[in-house]
Amino acid sequence: MCFKKQKIREMNQESDHPLLPEIASNPARLKELAEPQLAQVAREIRELLCRLSEKRSVHFASNLGVVELAVALHSSLDFSKDRLVWDTGHQCYPHKILTGRCSEIESIRTLGGLMGYPNPDESPFDLFMTGHAGCSIGSALGLSLGDAILRPEEERHAFAVVGDGALASGVIFEALNLAGGLKHPITVILNDNKMSICGRVGGLGHYLDRLRLNPSYKKIKNSIRRAIDAIPSVGTSTGDIISRFKDSVKAGITGGMLFEEFGFRYIGPIDGHNIPLLRRYLTMVRKFREPVLLHILTEKGHGYRDAELDPARYHAPSPSLVGHHGDPPAEPAEETPEVRGKNASVAIPEARSVRSKQDRTAQIRSTAEMLPNDSDPDMPGDHSFTHWARNAIYRLMKEDRRFCVLTAAMAQGTMLEPIRRLFPDRFFDVGICEANAVVTASGLAKAGMRPIVDIYSTFLQRAYDNLFQEVSLQNLPVIFMIDRAGVVGADGPTHHGVFDLAYIRPFPHFQVMAPADAREVEPMLRYAAACGAPAAIRYPRTAAPRLERIPAPIETGKAEILRRGTDGAVAVLGERAKAVLELADGLAALPEGERLDLEVINARFVKPLDTQTLLRPLREGKFLLTVEEGVLAGGFGSALLEAASDAGVNTQKIRRLGIGDAFTPPGSRDELLKILGLDGEGIKEALQRMK
Amino acid sequence: MCFKKQKIREMNQESDHPLLPEIASNPARLKELAEPQLAQVAREIRELLCRLSEKRSVHFASNLGVVELAVALHSSLDFSKDRLVWDTGHQCYPHKILTGRCSEIESIRTLGGLMGYPNPDESPFDLFMTGHAGCSIGSALGLSLGDAILRPEEERHAFAVVGDGALASGVIFEALNLAGGLKHPITVILNDNKMSICGRVGGLGHYLDRLRLNPSYKKIKNSIRRAIDAIPSVGTSTGDIISRFKDSVKAGITGGMLFEEFGFRYIGPIDGHNIPLLRRYLTMVRKFREPVLLHILTEKGHGYRDAELDPARYHAPSPSLVGHHGDPPAEPAEETPEVRGKNASVAIPEARSVRSKQDRTAQIRSTAEMLPNDSDPDMPGDHSFTHWARNAIYRLMKEDRRFCVLTAAMAQGTMLEPIRRLFPDRFFDVGICEANAVVTASGLAKAGMRPIVDIYSTFLQRAYDNLFQEVSLQNLPVIFMIDRAGVVGADGPTHHGVFDLAYIRPFPHFQVMAPADAREVEPMLRYAAACGAPAAIRYPRTAAPRLERIPAPIETGKAEILRRGTDGAVAVLGERAKAVLELADGLAALPEGERLDLEVINARFVKPLDTQTLLRPLREGKFLLTVEEGVLAGGFGSALLEAASDAGVNTQKIRRLGIGDAFTPPGSRDELLKILGLDGEGIKEALQRMK
Repeated sequence: MCFKKQKIREMNQESDHPLLPEIASNPARLKELAEPQLAQVAREIRELLCRLSEKRSVHFASNLGVVELAVALHSSLDFSKDRLVWDTGHQCYPHKILTGRCSEIESIRTLGGLMGYPNPDESPFDLFMTGHAGCSIGSALGLSLGDAILRPEEERHAFAVVGDGALASGVIFEALNLAGGLKHPITVILNDNKMSICGRVGGLGHYLDRLRLNPSYKKIKNSIRRAIDAIPSVGTSTGDIISRFKDSVKAGITGGMLFEEFGFRYIGPIDGHNIPLLRRYLTMVRKFREPVLLHILTEKGHGYRDAELDPARYHAPSPSLVGHHGDPPAEPAEETPEVRGKNASVAIPEARSVRSKQDRTAQIRSTAEMLPNDSDPDMPGDHSFTHWARNAIYRLMKEDRRFCVLTAAMAQGTMLEPIRRLFPDRFFDVGICEANAVVTASGLAKAGMRPIVDIYSTFLQRAYDNLFQEVSLQNLPVIFMIDRAGVVGADGPTHHGVFDLAYIRPFPHFQVMAPADAREVEPMLRYAAACGAPAAIRYPRTAAPRLERIPAPIETGKAEILRRGTDGAVAVLGERAKAVLELADGLAALPEGERLDLEVINARFVKPLDTQTLLRPLREGKFLLTVEEGVLAGGFGSALLEAASDAGVNTQKIRRLGIGDAFTPPGSRDELLKILGLDGEGIKEALQRMK
Repeated sequence: MCFKKQKIREMNQESDHPLLPEIASNPARLKELAEPQLAQVAREIRELLCRLSEKRSVHFASNLGVVELAVALHSSLDFSKDRLVWDTGHQCYPHKILTGRCSEIESIRTLGGLMGYPNPDESPFDLFMTGHAGCSIGSALGLSLGDAILRPEEERHAFAVVGDGALASGVIFEALNLAGGLKHPITVILNDNKMSICGRVGGLGHYLDRLRLNPSYKKIKNSIRRAIDAIPSVGTSTGDIISRFKDSVKAGITGGMLFEEFGFRYIGPIDGHNIPLLRRYLTMVRKFREPVLLHILTEKGHGYRDAELDPARYHAPSPSLVGHHGDPPAEPAEETPEVRGKNASVAIPEARSVRSKQDRTAQIRSTAEMLPNDSDPDMPGDHSFTHWARNAIYRLMKEDRRFCVLTAAMAQGTMLEPIRRLFPDRFFDVGICEANAVVTASGLAKAGMRPIVDIYSTFLQRAYDNLFQEVSLQNLPVIFMIDRAGVVGADGPTHHGVFDLAYIRPFPHFQVMAPADAREVEPMLRYAAACGAPAAIRYPRTAAPRLERIPAPIETGKAEILRRGTDGAVAVLGERAKAVLELADGLAALPEGERLDLEVINARFVKPLDTQTLLRPLREGKFLLTVEEGVLAGGFGSALLEAASDAGVNTQKIRRLGIGDAFTPPGSRDELLKILGLDGEGIKEALQRMK
């Protein structure tokens, strides 16, 4: 044991009995504790962490560093309403201990036990399962934007706790930029312990060092402000002010300028191990109506001397290391008493659709002037998939305030400009920041919104890891309208959107669709909105055809049979369906001997796959050709091969048409489809090879 | 035609004949032109762009905006040695016109014509095929770091041209942070036209606006510096200085502080349409020995009035739009003459392995003390794959100065700390910035280095788009040592590395491998280093077994037969080979009736796949079980199904073992392998189901 009971008693005259067991059974009790008792809670948590790390390899030093922060957060604020996201997440142990999981903490990082990272399945206080760094600010911003739309009367506030290691992640800056630009009130707590897992690197590290090295920084800033406000009474004792300027300006710190330049108010640095101080600052920043960055200084491994001296070694030490080197922790700083009596409720209410006070109904009525009025896909016309997608998004946003749309500097390309004008509070252009578009969307979804990320296939690649962590892993109902999926034309290989099926399909929970014509776009979007899971709808950059049939409703993992035939089948995903249908009609009209009577299946879903419909032709001994506008490796046809193999169906009569293992050059859509063998002629040749 | 010949003559008395045709046949000629002639070249380029956009939809406004910049760059600097990377790349037309492609420019964005983005296949002056924003700084940094190692005597300088729209991309900040931290001299030219494709968004936009609004910014900064340096002669006329402080400090600009805080020297803003001014600044910053950001102000659509007024509409206008609205361009600013006579050579020499002056041989000899001396994988031991990977990396770095290693804040986890100490100039810890790790590696590779990106599978997800654009698309020989591939244990679903095979396999040019035992790690790395293509080697977090055989050499796309057998085959990718071999030996020793004599194939490659070896058992009518520690969707088994289908081989006797469509919980490696059916028992059961 690294911390002696005797020692605790000496340091803590006020309370002789341990407090954690009480808090374990009633976390709200924390809010009733006086400050000496809060200090005791911190010591008990630290002792518990030491005991834990003697038993098993756990994240140790980082958790010791945030004990006081966690106590201050949960004792001064109410996170049954307010939002708290721990970036990277391995420093969540004190938070878990304080939110009803104290008695289970010994099971952490074991099969069936508590997770070593925040886990929404464990507690409503864990909002995101995090592990990859840098996404907390975007998630918190999304949560806060959603709260502001759905429950403005509650004035919830969102907090993100970010380590200085994670601060270097690009997505952090994307989120700072968005929050700063929106001037939306969220609080970023920068937990600066001068370390990621190893030492920190880069120019930012030097910058934070300079902020640290100047303890009187805040005083200087205030005196500069005062001095400047006092001008034009010039000439009086300005020499003194100038000399104080000297240090701050030369060191490049006129006040957390980096964060202020992103539009944040910078406060700090303050001592992150001083609970009363933290509580005062947290209560203060909670009231700000602008984005705030609160810079706190902590010591990784605080209170455990060996870990303080070598925090990298103690990041996740082996139990033997902790057991053998168990010196008592350093004494905590003196704390001034302050009685708290606020109660906390732990239940987080379900998301509700609350109309904002400024109802935009009147404005929305004027839409006929702003949106093209030929927006009925049953009408003849030559509109793009993009057009129908935009119109469908518009209708959903008009009907239900939970829908909002995010674009990454592509409002023109995705034709969303009218929506920007009509729904300014539910339209988010995040800039060329696709990762943060997805992260912010995840926060919005978590708050109860139904965010639609409208984005090009090739640019969504930049958010791959956020599709994984923020959407698939959390199983959040974010909808992706993936535009420019397939060949895009003259922009060429940097812009063709051919990998999306392969990269999204492996993610659990995701449903992945492609409309065959204009009339499937809105039903698919409505299906996606209703399915409650992450959903992606992909379509190419071209006029959306109109197939001659009454479309079947969109049902989970159900394909649609467009044409019946006896000689074989073609399963198409997406827009190529029309070319296949025309080809099939042509082949059926050929004279006896050359004639081919084909079944044509509109697959609609890549995931879940309609194995019943798609494998039937094979089971009947017929051939099956798959057609997709995407890479063959891991794509739709590949999914079908997997399904056939799993079902024990012979795949020898399957052939796959799509994009092979090479980059596609620039060219017109028609030229490229021809080169790829995805035009009518190419598909015909493939069929003739199969006969 | 939007620009009248008559008008050109009036404005340009000095030269009656057009200059572009001359430059087209000899780009080096540009360096001999006097400044009035350079101005004429700019006008001719602008005229050409107008003509081009009348014919076809091209990126128009952005190219008009950088005409003067391109002329200034290519007339004042020598990019046959220096490095120039255009971010996003659609503004490369003037650059293409000036680097030998003037006569082909009319073919731009057509099948078989010039690409609308930089294209290394067209010209040695196009270093990267770019299209996705934000990667130019990391690429330029990598190029420059590589040049500094391989050809320090040439003192090459790298320039990245970044638009203000791209500036918001997270990966930009990751690169600024790395360059600033390394204090490595590169120049970022921030081309600020206040637009991405639509208007720019976010706090950064406001910040750049403030920089713009203060034309006397540089003067203020200098006077502040002078005033501060003059202290302690305090009291004299400081009132004047203070009052000038007031505006700048209150507006939050004490000098491009944002960039300075990343460790860059900020210079600007200057007029980006003034060629003599640009030339003077470019020549100046070229000499700096620190990272510089040169802020230039340009107008998107400059010189074409309609495009100036509505640049979004003219981003890539339809030909009819340009044809109908063809007003003459605004007059260029007056320019002062300056004669240039420097010649340029266009050939970029092949990468060579040049030893640095500070040869570290002596230091390297001491390695025995720093690296564990049991680093021969033929020795018995219980070391991890990570250990063998690190030792192999060490040996390559010792042998050949072209090798360098990049880690993203994981030097401890990847055991690279000794390498950091031994090879400080070829070890790069980029922080938690995986995207920029890959981007910087791509620049290093382009400069002739052989960068090794040593990274966890789950975190490499954060660089998905950079695997695509910076590595696969450029076909650069970057080597990925993918650690923690498979289940990682107690960290759980955020950290399991199970998607890598599925997400890398679809990328052209990539070769993807997995070692079965300790003795394959170094040969695979050596193969990867020699193959000249992007290569990935993935291995799990566990002790590397030692299989009892003399390993066959690693050859492109060749599997290794570990055991011959007559009843069926198991194809294993990676570490599970040992478990399968032991199982096979056990099954072969069973009594007649229960006995199973299995062939065991060590697949080694997922891409290219050894279809001959892997499909043979199927062709012989035997069953084939695939075993992989990764997701089944799109993984190794899926690749085999694709290959079998393409070859017309019946797949009914294939079964795939791997990770299904769900997240894997935390737990010990053994527990998780058992749950997933990937332990000996699970594989045995799968085999029994196949018999």
